[in-house]
Formats: sequence, C-alpha cells, structure tokens
Amino acid sequence: MKGGYIGKILFVNLTDKTIRTEPIDPQVAEKYIGGKGYALYLLYYRYLKEYMAKGMSPKDVNPLGPENVLIFATGPITGVAGVPSPGRYHVMALRSPLTGSVGSANSGGEFGPYMKFAGYDMIVVEGASEKPVYLEVVNGHAEIKDASDIWGRNVFDTTRVLKNRVKAKNVSVACIGPAGENLVLMANIMNDDHRAAGRTGLGAVMGSKKLKAIVVAGEEKPQVAKPDEFRELSRNLIERMKKNPVTGEGLPTYGTAVLVNIINQAGMLPYKNWQFGYNPEADKISGETLAKTFLIKRRPCWGCQIGCGRVVKVESGPYQILYSEGPEYESIWALGNTTGVMDLAAVIKANHLCDELGMDPISLGSTIACAMELREKGYIPEEDLQGIDLRFGNAAALVESIWRTAYKSGFGAKLALGSKRLAEMYGAPELSMSVKGLEMPAYDPRGAKGIGLNYATANRGGCHVTGYTISPEILGLPQKIDPLTPEGKAQWVKIFQDLTDVVNSAVNCLFVTFALGAQDYADLFNTVAGFNFTTDDVMTIGERIYNLERYIMSYYGFSAKDDTLPKRLTHEPMPEGPVKGQVVELDKMLAEYYKLRGWVDGVPTKEKLKQLGIEP
Amino acid sequence: MKGGYIGKILFVNLTDKTIRTEPIDPQVAEKYIGGKGYALYLLYYRYLKEYMAKGMSPKDVNPLGPENVLIFATGPITGVAGVPSPGRYHVMALRSPLTGSVGSANSGGEFGPYMKFAGYDMIVVEGASEKPVYLEVVNGHAEIKDASDIWGRNVFDTTRVLKNRVKAKNVSVACIGPAGENLVLMANIMNDDHRAAGRTGLGAVMGSKKLKAIVVAGEEKPQVAKPDEFRELSRNLIERMKKNPVTGEGLPTYGTAVLVNIINQAGMLPYKNWQFGYNPEADKISGETLAKTFLIKRRPCWGCQIGCGRVVKVESGPYQILYSEGPEYESIWALGNTTGVMDLAAVIKANHLCDELGMDPISLGSTIACAMELREKGYIPEEDLQGIDLRFGNAAALVESIWRTAYKSGFGAKLALGSKRLAEMYGAPELSMSVKGLEMPAYDPRGAKGIGLNYATANRGGCHVTGYTISPEILGLPQKIDPLTPEGKAQWVKIFQDLTDVVNSAVNCLFVTFALGAQDYADLFNTVAGFNFTTDDVMTIGERIYNLERYIMSYYGFSAKDDTLPKRLTHEPMPEGPVKGQVVELDKMLAEYYKLRGWVDGVPTKEKLKQLGIEP
Repeated sequence: MKGGYIGKILFVNLTDKTIRTEPIDPQVAEKYIGGKGYALYLLYYRYLKEYMAKGMSPKDVNPLGPENVLIFATGPITGVAGVPSPGRYHVMALRSPLTGSVGSANSGGEFGPYMKFAGYDMIVVEGASEKPVYLEVVNGHAEIKDASDIWGRNVFDTTRVLKNRVKAKNVSVACIGPAGENLVLMANIMNDDHRAAGRTGLGAVMGSKKLKAIVVAGEEKPQVAKPDEFRELSRNLIERMKKNPVTGEGLPTYGTAVLVNIINQAGMLPYKNWQFGYNPEADKISGETLAKTFLIKRRPCWGCQIGCGRVVKVESGPYQILYSEGPEYESIWALGNTTGVMDLAAVIKANHLCDELGMDPISLGSTIACAMELREKGYIPEEDLQGIDLRFGNAAALVESIWRTAYKSGFGAKLALGSKRLAEMYGAPELSMSVKGLEMPAYDPRGAKGIGLNYATANRGGCHVTGYTISPEILGLPQKIDPLTPEGKAQWVKIFQDLTDVVNSAVNCLFVTFALGAQDYADLFNTVAGFNFTTDDVMTIGERIYNLERYIMSYYGFSAKDDTLPKRLTHEPMPEGPVKGQVVELDKMLAEYYKLRGWVDGVPTKEKLKQLGIEP
Repeated sequence: MKGGYIGKILFVNLTDKTIRTEPIDPQVAEKYIGGKGYALYLLYYRYLKEYMAKGMSPKDVNPLGPENVLIFATGPITGVAGVPSPGRYHVMALRSPLTGSVGSANSGGEFGPYMKFAGYDMIVVEGASEKPVYLEVVNGHAEIKDASDIWGRNVFDTTRVLKNRVKAKNVSVACIGPAGENLVLMANIMNDDHRAAGRTGLGAVMGSKKLKAIVVAGEEKPQVAKPDEFRELSRNLIERMKKNPVTGEGLPTYGTAVLVNIINQAGMLPYKNWQFGYNPEADKISGETLAKTFLIKRRPCWGCQIGCGRVVKVESGPYQILYSEGPEYESIWALGNTTGVMDLAAVIKANHLCDELGMDPISLGSTIACAMELREKGYIPEEDLQGIDLRFGNAAALVESIWRTAYKSGFGAKLALGSKRLAEMYGAPELSMSVKGLEMPAYDPRGAKGIGLNYATANRGGCHVTGYTISPEILGLPQKIDPLTPEGKAQWVKIFQDLTDVVNSAVNCLFVTFALGAQDYADLFNTVAGFNFTTDDVMTIGERIYNLERYIMSYYGFSAKDDTLPKRLTHEPMPEGPVKGQVVELDKMLAEYYKLRGWVDGVPTKEKLKQLGIEP
C-alpha cells in the first residue's frame, strides 16, 4: 500500500529557458488536493505573495505579461482507470486577460491523463519566450523547442504536426490557434483537436508567452494506494453512474445538446442576446435533431463511461464538414440560439472554426449576439462593420465574424475584446450579457433563480460549471426544488460551488456529480491516493479553495460590487414564454449567501480565512 | 522649355536601413523611357549582373530572399494632368515567387501620381528588414518606420491607419495584407484600398522583406516640357478617347465587366476550370446585371477620363457589403464563372476579401477552380480538405477558401501555392490552367488564337495585359480580324507585346490603346518630357524592353520549352458553344513568332540583342 498523493510538478521558465521539478507536497495536497486547488495554492503563495514582497501591486500584474503564470494541473484521481470520467485537467492563471480576475478553465480528451503518464501531475509555466516555442514532455523528459515552423498554423494542423513528431505512446497536444497567438481575449487552449480549456482567455496567455503548444507522451501509469478497496468502489460507483438518468442515459444518447429542448421548454434558453428565453424554433438545433441528422458516433474522453462527446459530419450544403466533434449544448446555444442562427449545419461549421482557430464559443457567440443587438438598436454605425451584415439570424455573418475575430480583421478586432469592452465602447454596457467580464452561459436565471445567484458569485464570472444549480432546479437531481423561488438558493449555491472546486481539484469530470457526491469523492481520494478524508473534510477543502480564489481576487479589486447580474435579468421581466414576468431577486439571495459564506463586502473576513486555515 | 525626362529615384535598403537617391539617367530613359523599362534596366545591370560578377548563379536568386529587388516605378507621363489615364504605376521584381521568372505587376488608383508628387519617379527596395517596417515618403523626405503595430492588419485597416498618420496633401498607401505577410504566392500589393498590383505574387516579396507598406504624399507636380503643344495634343487625344466605343462608352458605362457577355457569346468565357467556354447562366454575373443591381457609382483612377472602376454595395443577404470597389471582369470570371459560382453578391464578397487580405483574384480563383476539378476527378482525398466542400458552384466554400488561403489554414496552405504546384502535388499537372506558373485570365484561346500565342509567349506567363489581341480578334479594334485563324497572329502579338511594354514604361493605362497608338505615345513623350521620339523609336523601345526581360528570364532557365499552353487548349477540342471543336494551333504560330522576334529556342540571339542595343 502506498500512502498519500505522490506526484511531480514541472516548472518551466520561458524567459530564461530553465526547467526544474519538485514533488507534490503532501501537506499542500492534504489541504488543497491537486488540480485547481493546488494550482491556486501555488499561484498565491509561490507567485502573488512573492510579487507583493518585491513591492509589486497585484493590480499591476499584466495578464499578458511575463509575470503571469499558467498552470496545467491534474489531480490524484486523474488518469486512473476505473475512476468515473477521469479524463480531465484544469488550467489556472494568476490573471485572466478577459476578466482581470484569476484565470480558470477545464478540458477533457486525453491531455490530462497523458500528461500524468508523461511523468508530471502539473506543469507550471513562468515567464515568456521571445520567439515561438513549444514544450515537449515525454516519459519524464522535458524540453523547450523551437516552434517557428508551426506559429501561425491552426489547431488541427499544429496538433497533427506535433503528434507525428513524437515517437512514443500516448501522445497528446494542447496548443493555441491563431486566436491565441493574436491575443484574442477569448482565445482557448485546445487539446486533442476539439477539446477546449475554453474560458477566461487562457489561449491569449499562452500566446503572450509565445508558447504554441505542450506535447505530452508517456507510459507512467498512476498507482493506486488501496487496489482491492478501489476495485470494489469503482464497480459500485460506475454501477450508480449507469443507473442515473443523466449520466447513464441522457448524456450518452444525446450529449449535452439534450438540454436545448429541456431548457427551452423551461423558458430559459437565452434567445437573441437574452432578449427572450423561449424560442419556438429551438428544436431545429436540438440534441434530438442533431442525433437524427449529422451525428456519426460518440467520442468519449480518456477512460470515461459516459461518453457525452459527439462526432458529426455535414455531407452537403455550404457548411459541409467531413469530421468534427461537438457541438456541445453551450456551443449550440451561443453560436445558434443567441445569435438567432437556426441552421444546425452553420452552427456546426461555426463551432468547428472556433476549435480550429482556438476560441471560446460561449464568449464569442455571446459577443457576436451583443454586437447584433448593438447594431439593431443603432449603437454601431454601419461603417464600423466594414461590410459584415451583423444581424440576428445571418449564418454567413456569424461564420465570417469568427474568421475576423481570430485574426482581428476589421470589426473582428473589436469582437476580439469580448462583449463587455465592446458594449462599453459603444455606450451601452448593459447589453453585454456578462458577469465580471465573462459571458454567461445558456441558462436565463429568470427561470431558475439559483443559477442567477451562482452567476453573480462564481469566482471566474458568468459561469455555469462553478455551481450548477440547474441540476436540482430543472433536472431534479439530487432532488427537485422550485426554480422560481429565491428561497433557500444561497445554501444550494454554496454547496455546489464548494463541491465543484473539489471536483476541479480531483481532477474529475463535473458530470459525475449528477450521480455521485462528496462521500464518493472522499472514498476515491482515500482508496486511490491514500488520503484519510471524511465527507466533511472534502467539503471543507472545497470551501477553502473557493475562499482562497476569492481572497486572491480581492487583491485585484474585486468585491461585492462585482457580484452582480446584467440589469436585463434583475430589472426586465421575461417578456414571454413559460417564465413570463419573472426577474432575478438577486439582492435577497446575495445577502443570505454572504452570511453563509462569512464574507463582508464579497470578501472572506480574516476570521473566515483563519477558520479555513488560509494564511493571508 | 525643359528638355528630357527629369526625375529622381529613391533607393531604400531594408537590411542596413540606408536611403539614397539618384537622378533619372537621360541615357537610360532614352532607351527604356521609365516605368517597367527603366526598372528592368536597373534589375539587370544594377543587380543581376552584379550578383553574377560576385559568383552568384541567377538560378540561386531566392524570390523571397533579401537578394530580391522590388521596384515601384512611374514614368514620364504618369501623374501629368491632361495625359489620358495617367494614374498607374508598375512594380517589378528581380524574381517572382509564383513563377520564378521576372516579377511584374501594374496598378491604378492614386499611388503612382502621388509617389511622383512625393518627389520620386521610382522607389527601389533592396534587402530585407528583420522586423516589420514601412516606408514613408513625404515631399521628398523618406524614412523607414516601425510597422509592428500594423503587422497582421488587413489592407483596409492598414491603409486607414497610415493615411491618418500623415499630415500632408495627396496621401496614398500601397501595402500588403495578411496574405503578403504569410508569403502566399499569389499575394498582391494593394494601394488605395481596392487597387492591386496583382500578379506574380509581389505581395509575398514585400512580405519577405517585412515591408508592410509604402506611404507617399506630396505636392511636387510634374512639369511639362512643351506646355502649349501638350495642351493641344491633350485636347485632341481626349477627344478621340471619348469618341471611341470602348473608352468613351463601354468601359465608362459597364466597366470591364461589360466583357462577361461579349466573351461568353464568343464561346470563350472559361467555365469550370476551362472545361467549357460557354456558360448559359453567365448573364447572372455580367456587367449589365451588375449595373442593374449592386452598382453605386464610378471610381476613376487619378486624372482618368475613362473611369472604368466600379463602386458597389450589397444591401442584404449573407454577402452584404456596405462599400466595395470592383469587381472587374477578371475577378468576376475567376471568382465566379470558372468556379461555377453564379451568385454575383458572393463574387463581390469574394473579391472584397481578396482586396482586404491582399490576393490576386485571377490566380486565386483559378487555383480554387483547379482544386474543384482535382477533387471532382478524385485526385484530392476528402480528408485533405479538412471539411471544405470544394465543388463547382459552392459559394460558401469559395469565400471560406479565400480566408484559408490568406492565412494558410488547413487546405488553404496548399491553395496558397498556386494551381501549378497544387496540380503537380496531386499528380495531375495538366489541370493547372497556367503558363509559366501564372494562371491565365478569362479568354479561352480556342476562340481567339492570337491570345493563345500571347499567353504562351508573354514574358510573365499566362497574361492578358502583355499583348491583348482580344482587341482586334473580338472587339474589332483597331480593325476586326478573324479570331479563329492562326494566320498572321504572330505579327499582331509581337506588335501588341512591344506596344504594351511602351505603355507600361510610360507609365500609362493600357486601356488607352483601344483608342490611341504608338504615334500618340511618341507625341506624349515628346511634349511632356522633351524626348524626340518617332513612332519607330517608340516601337523599338518596346521591343528592346520585351527582349531585355526575355533575356533576363533565360538566366533563370526559361526557354522555348516554357512557351506553351495547357494541353486542354491545344489538344481538347472545345466541347460545346459557338467555337465548338476548336483547339489552339500553337506550334504553327510559335514558329512564325520566333522568326519575327529573331529568337532561337525562345531566347533572343546575340545579334538580336546587339541590334536592339542591349549589352549582354
């Protein structure tokens, strides 16, 4: 039997081209597990506090400067066969160029497990290179290599070239496309062609460091501390996953796109930049329609039993695609429903281009929809558009805007800034449907108040994977609660947010939580990595991580004033559909939430930090 | 009275950042006038011979290396008010990256005249910069400036930024777009937004030198040697231009697009990569249809009385454009007819993107059409296309291919090489409709044999503006000749080629020759610049220039073997339409042509060179 979480961290400095390693610190792991939690620990104690000690103000940390730090992180249960959905990794940055807050994103595919097989649980990237480089990590050996021949290439080309270059088993590439190189503020880090660490613009951080890609490969399989107990646990958990209606049936059959019709019928599928929450035509772009038309097969992440990933092919028409993955629910909504483009083939094309060029469909689609409303309302003069007919429903303009944004060509240079800066530039900041500068995902909280509180308080901004109360409010998991009441939502949001940070530190797929809970994670940590956690321990760790992130954010100036929603959601009653007349009663929920959190002005108090064992 | 051609040449070395000037040499001007002729003189005597003297083989001149030389050239009658259509300039390069031959292109707008007003008749660019720069020439003062903030920007953005930066009268910008920066082999040099020095890939030469743009501005108006005689001459010439059916009526009313229906009715409008010469749907994209639909107004070059340039607007649909110029006949054909895209709005969009990204529509459209046929015939495997449905008639695939080519994304990286390399790569070189690597323009010579001989023998490759025998063969100017006979065509081709080189050295617009001839050019040179040329002198100068270019080409290995046409034109009888059954009888015409030229194996003999006063 092996005790505790054993693993290594690779530190790569792109300024002076040095590489060093250190082991996972068991005391840190005990408090922050791995993944997001451990990365946050490093960002704060290893970097931000050091910068402050040297006299630098956190507000002067340039997200696109060499002082930003980017961490690719797996956790103790990532890449372990038999763990439910163990194929993800998390990326953190000291600061996001889109939001100015902490950068945070998560992705599936093979990269996470293969990074671990390459010998490292985490890769920490410091500094910035002058010339384009990529990092190659194969079976424990890491090397910074010249990337001048692939700089400028798209994600698919880059991935193929680098994969062919490494002669080893289990090769995976995480890279940026042109959008990241061009410092588009919603640029993604892409891995395995179509998988994206896709929020808060971390592709631009890679671009600013001139780091085109990280290639990992290896055969170092993670060990399990208590193999017999784990085998039994694994059987039990996977059995429960299979019996669960979402993880055993809905997601495998229709993918995330199963939500299009569900959320539309709940009256909260944002349509035309959130002017409406119900779209009578939504079925044209639903998961069911996708399954009947363009779907070829499933494409699971490494070791996953759910397999929500889709493979599609569009065989004719102007938007033909011979092979693509996705589109996910969020891509369908952001590139389709909110832009009013009801052509599923065009949405697939747009999603494919987002992958190819390396951009976040949620932020990009929402920014395009914002521009469409800005234009419709007369804020954007026609000459600024340089000929793009940016109106709701124009598929060609959608596709063209994606090219333009990635290359900052013409009006694309403005779209590349995201909806917050765009709407401010044109004097109508209220038309940016974002929180803390991050565009919100596809659930209008006027139809489920809990998700509204979560959007307002999620650390990274308008985010659905930080505290997904849609699960109880709409899907009835683990139990059905009334979506329209603000009552009792603060408690749900807090628990979901804390649990999510556990999952992101595991690192595990969030979809597992449809079926499993904190006790199951404690069991996984204990059997796989030799921890001795109780359920309470696990939830306290989640809360600790959530508070540390919030505490770091306070250094950048974030406070209660930023825990808000766009006015449309709190002051414009939903105009029609099943939840007609509803608004989000945010203030009431927020007061209760802060009380539960032990925060004042949206920031953890000294007592709270002390209670959680966070040293300021 | 002022005698001889007085002017200055600016030499800019981008490697060591030195700038020097020298006066126009009257002895060189006497033999080569200015423009293309004078530039060729410099390229050969000042550079190529020097390289050879240092032991370098001409075949080792890398078109994208610092050893290439790029010359922007006006001539004695450019920018002189009262000269018919005096708004053009010529660009020459020691070597074209597309063809490997001498690089040569010509453009209108304001750049030529304004460069002269800025104080220089020619700008010679040597060497290559390490970092992006642009050249600013204002009222005699030249400076190399940092272009890092505009590198990556499109043509319209670049032009606007640089125009706003110069506080002077008569500002004009010639620049490259992303295609030039990315060394796309069909990249253009663009000036005044929509005007293009658009053949032989000279934008890539600028890109290789990291020269983003040349900005010129000034008020130094050229003087006229014999003002009274010139005034009289000008009145007379312009009167004749106005009375001529092409320069006085056809071009002003319909622009060059008037040719769509004329050439289609002659059965020689290449359709679907030259598989056919007649398209029953051609009127959908004709000049007449353009005039009835999207045309807003004319947009003449500086000082031009013809004003063939079009301004268009597409107010609705997926291809909306608020303002664009063109499309010209060649763009309409290459982006529309030969790709089978019969949607005029899509063609306007495609043309607009070519301008914005800086690419040659003739070469690009032809390369896309070539790819479409290669795919139709099974040469291109679907996976190489990365999802683009490259089939004849697909407007969306056309538009997408333009983005991909400019940024070398996916299959675009192959399109960026041009049709010759593409067709060779896929094992079907005969499907590239090019001569010497340059894609042919929109006249199928199976319907007009003279233009076939011209394509085969034009120095820069498949070129219609080197010896435009369409004028007598189809338009009946200066007299109607039988298009289908090969008899007597060699003589016409030689005269037209020689006269064209006079026009390109004048520098003047080729369209003037629909109405005027060699005697008129002699009169213009004599009155404007104080030469004492006879008509014979002028034609001898043209022949000298033509032979010098051909002689330089022989150093690169060009010979009679390269004076050919694609087999489709010489061996596949036209399958249908007005000239059904015709092929081009090239060999017969070629033998006669070489005899008239005094060439052996396609190269001027020593005697010929001596006779023309060309020192080897």
